[in-house]
Amino acid sequence: MSGISSGVDIHPAWLPSEAFGVLGSKRTLVVGSGVLVETVRDEVRGASSSYGGRLLDGDDDGSGHDGDHGADVVLGTGAAFGDDARAAAGPEAKAALDEAMAVAGSAGDREPLGREGFVVARRAGVTVVVGGDGPGLLYGMFHLLRFPELLTGPGRPAERHEPAHDLRMLDHWDNVAVHPVMGQVERGYAGGSIFYDDGEVRADLSRGEQYARLLAATGINRVAINNVNVHAREARLLTEDLGEVARIAEVFRPWSIRVHLSVNFASPIVLGGLETSDPLDEKVQAWWADAAARVYRAVPDFGGFVVKADSEGQPGPFAYGRDHADGANLLARALAPHGGVVHWRAFVYNHRQDWRDRSTDRARAAYDHFAPLDGRFEDNVIVQVKHGPMDFQVREPVSPVLAAMPRTRLAVELQVTQEYTGQQKHVCYLGPYWSEILRFRPWGAGALGSAGIAVSDLARGGLAAVSNVGDDRFWTGHPLAQANLYAFGRLAWEPELDPSAVLDEWIGLTFPGADDAVRASVHEVMDGSWRTYENYTAPMGVGFMVRPGHHYGPDVDGYEYTAWGTYHFADRDGVGVDRTRATGTGFTGQYPAPWRDIYESLAQCPDELLLFFHHVPYGHVLHSGTTVIQHIYDTHFAGFEEVERMAERWETLKGRIPDDVFARVAERLDEQLGSAREWRDRLCTYFYRKSGVPDACGRTIY
Amino acid sequence: MSGISSGVDIHPAWLPSEAFGVLGSKRTLVVGSGVLVETVRDEVRGASSSYGGRLLDGDDDGSGHDGDHGADVVLGTGAAFGDDARAAAGPEAKAALDEAMAVAGSAGDREPLGREGFVVARRAGVTVVVGGDGPGLLYGMFHLLRFPELLTGPGRPAERHEPAHDLRMLDHWDNVAVHPVMGQVERGYAGGSIFYDDGEVRADLSRGEQYARLLAATGINRVAINNVNVHAREARLLTEDLGEVARIAEVFRPWSIRVHLSVNFASPIVLGGLETSDPLDEKVQAWWADAAARVYRAVPDFGGFVVKADSEGQPGPFAYGRDHADGANLLARALAPHGGVVHWRAFVYNHRQDWRDRSTDRARAAYDHFAPLDGRFEDNVIVQVKHGPMDFQVREPVSPVLAAMPRTRLAVELQVTQEYTGQQKHVCYLGPYWSEILRFRPWGAGALGSAGIAVSDLARGGLAAVSNVGDDRFWTGHPLAQANLYAFGRLAWEPELDPSAVLDEWIGLTFPGADDAVRASVHEVMDGSWRTYENYTAPMGVGFMVRPGHHYGPDVDGYEYTAWGTYHFADRDGVGVDRTRATGTGFTGQYPAPWRDIYESLAQCPDELLLFFHHVPYGHVLHSGTTVIQHIYDTHFAGFEEVERMAERWETLKGRIPDDVFARVAERLDEQLGSAREWRDRLCTYFYRKSGVPDACGRTIY
Repeated sequence: MSGISSGVDIHPAWLPSEAFGVLGSKRTLVVGSGVLVETVRDEVRGASSSYGGRLLDGDDDGSGHDGDHGADVVLGTGAAFGDDARAAAGPEAKAALDEAMAVAGSAGDREPLGREGFVVARRAGVTVVVGGDGPGLLYGMFHLLRFPELLTGPGRPAERHEPAHDLRMLDHWDNVAVHPVMGQVERGYAGGSIFYDDGEVRADLSRGEQYARLLAATGINRVAINNVNVHAREARLLTEDLGEVARIAEVFRPWSIRVHLSVNFASPIVLGGLETSDPLDEKVQAWWADAAARVYRAVPDFGGFVVKADSEGQPGPFAYGRDHADGANLLARALAPHGGVVHWRAFVYNHRQDWRDRSTDRARAAYDHFAPLDGRFEDNVIVQVKHGPMDFQVREPVSPVLAAMPRTRLAVELQVTQEYTGQQKHVCYLGPYWSEILRFRPWGAGALGSAGIAVSDLARGGLAAVSNVGDDRFWTGHPLAQANLYAFGRLAWEPELDPSAVLDEWIGLTFPGADDAVRASVHEVMDGSWRTYENYTAPMGVGFMVRPGHHYGPDVDGYEYTAWGTYHFADRDGVGVDRTRATGTGFTGQYPAPWRDIYESLAQCPDELLLFFHHVPYGHVLHSGTTVIQHIYDTHFAGFEEVERMAERWETLKGRIPDDVFARVAERLDEQLGSAREWRDRLCTYFYRKSGVPDACGRTIY
Repeated sequence: MSGISSGVDIHPAWLPSEAFGVLGSKRTLVVGSGVLVETVRDEVRGASSSYGGRLLDGDDDGSGHDGDHGADVVLGTGAAFGDDARAAAGPEAKAALDEAMAVAGSAGDREPLGREGFVVARRAGVTVVVGGDGPGLLYGMFHLLRFPELLTGPGRPAERHEPAHDLRMLDHWDNVAVHPVMGQVERGYAGGSIFYDDGEVRADLSRGEQYARLLAATGINRVAINNVNVHAREARLLTEDLGEVARIAEVFRPWSIRVHLSVNFASPIVLGGLETSDPLDEKVQAWWADAAARVYRAVPDFGGFVVKADSEGQPGPFAYGRDHADGANLLARALAPHGGVVHWRAFVYNHRQDWRDRSTDRARAAYDHFAPLDGRFEDNVIVQVKHGPMDFQVREPVSPVLAAMPRTRLAVELQVTQEYTGQQKHVCYLGPYWSEILRFRPWGAGALGSAGIAVSDLARGGLAAVSNVGDDRFWTGHPLAQANLYAFGRLAWEPELDPSAVLDEWIGLTFPGADDAVRASVHEVMDGSWRTYENYTAPMGVGFMVRPGHHYGPDVDGYEYTAWGTYHFADRDGVGVDRTRATGTGFTGQYPAPWRDIYESLAQCPDELLLFFHHVPYGHVLHSGTTVIQHIYDTHFAGFEEVERMAERWETLKGRIPDDVFARVAERLDEQLGSAREWRDRLCTYFYRKSGVPDACGRTIY
């Protein structure tokens, strides 16, 4: 494959033409109607024209049934399978269709298939996908791309697929106007915004269209299109620029994705000219009701609002002596008549903390602010909680808020954009981390049969994540960072998926035609990359140690004496944050049993979170048998060596994958190698200078 | 004085109308001709019209002599005192005039008065100023403002004043186009540029005119009008924008100030379209010769070029395998026919150093690059050397380059803009620091009768400094930072001046009518402020410990693991940089005796420079009798308390000085107090956590 390139200006990510090769070679009948069925029809038509198959149309007079040769593939919404459609499908389709329809129906405790669900079955050489409605059909079609053996192999019993929850959302931190510090996309590492350019919505939204299609193929169904830090220019999306929002919504609609807006809590003042944005003020309530009505006139399937309030300088209800329930309910009541929801972020803390004050613990803040409000929120409020108590660090415990608000709809917020995990200059496949988070059992392994927070808490809420795309030709800067976007969508749909298997799905789609050895090499480079990144960066859950502001590269004390509440407290004797109830900030008490006791106990606390929960001497012996200081040395040397091996492995792919992908990744691996070396040497030197303990292995520390 | 304000939009700095009160009340004869004599005449005319005096004109037919009542003050150039002028001055002026003329003449070893010199004498109630030529007369007139007793007191023998050297220069780091990171003025803390606005030379240069007058009153005679980092927009000042440069030169000409340009060494490529800027290439030489000729056609009294080459990313001769003598001489030969000079900066070092590499020492760089070139430079090259080997830190030893190049004209570069000394948010009167630097005796106290570098080295060279003004209404952001600009001009003229007396001059001019108590309070707030700043920031000459990039506020490890060569090497046992010949980088060997031995010796090295030259244990006992660690604690607590006292003292001035000045300073003292507290607590905490040594006084360390 030497000399090949992706051959287009924009990299196709996980939907290259070849991904449709098997489906496109078949005779495919699509039945049903509506915009999403038309989307499916268009996809099949395009694929067929490239790969020699044929689109059969169940809406015409049965001509799809070509003599004694019926459809190879039948795609339809459940309601569309009347006699005509069955006739068009041909007799060979009957077995699979009957089986699929049965599995789509209700039985015993089982509800009938929801709109987004689908059933796929294969019998007698015919594959049938039945969608609960248009969305399910769309997802079912993409499912066939991931698993082409469903189109070619032996018969398969009907499988029923339904998303774990309804809110599978990506948040864009895109600014309309370029922010003087944060740029066009806040924490964006992949060029400019695909939606905005220098103060305006782009006239050409074709990148947005391609993006919507990519997202639909992973199961994403909601997108918030502007930054949660809503500046003056962005605020106007809610009013005078609604026509532009409607244009963006049009782009997403054929892919079953609803558009949300981040709004400024002070909008009644900023946009409406009122003197207050007090949630209990009737004029404020009326202003929001009008605003919501206007939005729905422009965008009938509008999703709702996202709000960052009383956080890092954003306005909020505190200014009026109100709480976050008052604030969220204000917007929720305005949206409720139209079916919209409010994503209200729980990321509220004191970002002007005095570093001298050891009693304040930023990790406590979300729980302290929100747990007391459980039960106070309207039903269309989703409290959106960052997965950890701090801020998207490479390792944090799961936020205790997720177990503390049983009467509140909660969404877990992840960060696909790699703000603290290498900024798409480093390979860092986050699937395994997210999977750990989603499988975390707040009440312990045996409690309530829970299979993790995903099942226990998200069913009424959902998952949201900050997107990592921009107008970069590879979408994500680092081509391998596409896998994070893909994996987020897949895990949002089915949180129990094996992230390693999801990685293989992505590799299969993204590198069509690659042989097993190539796929294995890509897998090898990526699968352990999150733990590798953890190895050479901040140790054992202590977090940060990054350059202030841009958050790239090591600076052990970068945040140590700042107002941000992110400290490690390293001194000549030890390191870590005492968050115990016994002697520390008491944060461990925010967890239910057994975690409140496991984390409290120096003997039981997992090694990888030790410094998040405890301040320990450098000589403290870990469960692993080594000391804290030796662990720091060992993991940092190991992390760097792992990157060396990644780079060597990648080098073997030269000429075996598209040159442009090879070269971009190789260039970034160079940067990663240099950066990992800086991390290793600065961290080791810092702790050696402080502790005075030499490396047991005698390696060079500066 | 409650309720008064400066009463104008732009603060008059040290030339308020009242400063002319005594002179303006006199009958003043001005004799001579030329643009500078006209400037003097205009000043006297303006002062007289405000304060009831009269301008007498020596060029007319003697009408200046009003009956039996001659002039009170006679101002003229030496050559202008013919019979008519003497008649116009009146008989009472004769004694002073004869004495002044005698002192202006040659006698024994004494040369006749130079163009910039002046003699002032007072006899028989008449004060006479004789200028060597127009510049001297101008400086003599301003001298009368500083010392109004010369106009009113008893007779005074003639005093002869001449500048210590000819090059008394301010460098502006003003960008024409706003730089995306550095802004309109690089390291500017007083608003925008008075010359440029957003990519163009200002149409209205009236601030420039006022500035020129202020500078003339201090003795400054050269101004480089653009940043030494010459970006694309600024490079064009040398070619298509020469007309604009000429406009600026017109503003400075009536004040005896010559304009210089910073140029880009790659100009032949960037502006000339050549393929090289190799100094030995004939086309390059011809390009520069043409460029210089064009400049002098537009600006006949143009001063010359300032060059930062092969430094921090700027282009230079190294690219062609040439050295700095080749580079500087290229430009010098182009300027020589026109009387111009090149200021070639010695600020050359490796700014991509690996922090792991302890053998490279940035402090060595200027000497290592330039000392071997001594004798190679054309006579119109001035090698411009930063006063210390690093970069304008609050405490550095004097650069050894100043003693290493006897066959080279050298200028010492100071920094009036307070990049590392509080950024015009902190009171930090730098006169005492500069005075120490200028009085430093490179060959020791008794050697060669030297009175310091000022006399020994600068006579053929000069002094340059980075200006601290902007379009702020107080010129310098912090009103008290005006004193630094004033003091630089005065010390450039006469390096042996007592900086405390210079401060009093400035206070007298700037706060006219203030009583002794007010003047004493202002003096008290300012005079020790540099040592106060040193107390609460980086200790004992170790430098930096500032936030990277903007350089404001504490960050002990901010530069510790970077490429900039600015380290402190603190570990759990000690701190400081070993620059000895015995065990360190050998930097001490760049000094002649006795300093090479004093700095080398732990026993002899002055406390205030200990950590610049030595890495010592925290328990090392200083000459002061305390340990290094206790010294760090003590000075940081003391420094903060000194700021508290400054603020209290300032508060007593409320209503006794103009409100606007009071308020601006009070606001900045608040900031200084908060910042000093941060410095104290972060430094103390950092060193306590590292050393584990408690404060002997038991004060709170976090």
